[in-house]
Amino acid sequence: MKQGAFVVFEGYDGTGKSTQCLKLAEWLRGQGATVTACADPGGTELALKLREVLQFGRQHAISLQTEALLFMASRAEMVDQIIRPAIGRGEVVISDRFLLSNIVYQGYAGKLDPELLWQAGQLSTGGLESDLTIILDMSVEIAKTRRRSNATRIDTRGEDFHNRVRDGFLATARRKPETHRVVNADASIDTVHGRVCDLVVGLLRSPQV
Amino acid sequence: MKQGAFVVFEGYDGTGKSTQCLKLAEWLRGQGATVTACADPGGTELALKLREVLQFGRQHAISLQTEALLFMASRAEMVDQIIRPAIGRGEVVISDRFLLSNIVYQGYAGKLDPELLWQAGQLSTGGLESDLTIILDMSVEIAKTRRRSNATRIDTRGEDFHNRVRDGFLATARRKPETHRVVNADASIDTVHGRVCDLVVGLLRSPQV
Repeated sequence: MKQGAFVVFEGYDGTGKSTQCLKLAEWLRGQGATVTACADPGGTELALKLREVLQFGRQHAISLQTEALLFMASRAEMVDQIIRPAIGRGEVVISDRFLLSNIVYQGYAGKLDPELLWQAGQLSTGGLESDLTIILDMSVEIAKTRRRSNATRIDTRGEDFHNRVRDGFLATARRKPETHRVVNADASIDTVHGRVCDLVVGLLRSPQV
Repeated sequence: MKQGAFVVFEGYDGTGKSTQCLKLAEWLRGQGATVTACADPGGTELALKLREVLQFGRQHAISLQTEALLFMASRAEMVDQIIRPAIGRGEVVISDRFLLSNIVYQGYAGKLDPELLWQAGQLSTGGLESDLTIILDMSVEIAKTRRRSNATRIDTRGEDFHNRVRDGFLATARRKPETHRVVNADASIDTVHGRVCDLVVGLLRSPQV
């Protein structure tokens, strides 16, 4: 098995990203891989501090630019502290969200220019790109029902917002078909997991990685 | 007098930026202008919180990318909360440092690509550019002596670092001669103030502003 790969899960809330991250990590460990799992934003002490700043920001209506840059800063630290060292050790890194969430939520679904966010993203990731980004996709209506049954906080953003999020993810998959693959997540957890494993096996066997 | 202008002071520590900001603000008020003075990073509640995060970061060796993005986030909030509203009200805004400091300290003098920082800077400033950036310049040796006599913290960065900072400021002035003007700050406070006033009078009379 090839080593030192970077796999990202993307998709809106309710598509099952966290579950699929866990299941993939477990499966890969069963195959003998060393896995580092992380979630963006998160993973570092700085990210914890920035989470507090973001919460303060939501109460005080900080600008979309500021919010986007705080996510970028948090990611820069995760790349530096967690992801690059793990890839360097030959591990498979699985991240629950990465730069694309920034582009989609503040860009496609917000009002910022996606191209500007990609550019700022270069500073955030230091040029690191995923070997494979798996976009878990389902209809906005089904995701809404799932979020409702599993809500830790109420999502007050309307259907139009969620449609723009979905469109942003799908548009990126069309632009980057080599590394960004869409998986229909409107199926059982095990069925989706099977589809994810097929993609990851393809990646780890590929000579590019 | 024309109104609604944005003036920035740049230059390394010890060149007298804060003093010249104060004196220019005072002089402009005497001329009947309404002035908003600010300092980057700073000016907002979020900036205060980010200052704590940056202090934590210095103790924990955060990456240069992360540090740059935290400055960018702080600036984005200052632009949104302070600078744009004041310019919109027709005021003259004077900022002690702005995006260029980020480019120079983390780019020219650090190890990040200045072009990448300019791009991320677009997100930070929302495209806002100064009408006039005054770069206070003096030899590295003289600035060092001034910082020593006026130090709140010891600057442990070597002469080579400060030379790269100076070169970064001067290179930018050569690239953007219309809006970036170098003032020799190796003179008395009043002499420098006189030179600054000449530039600002030229700006406020110019039909572009």
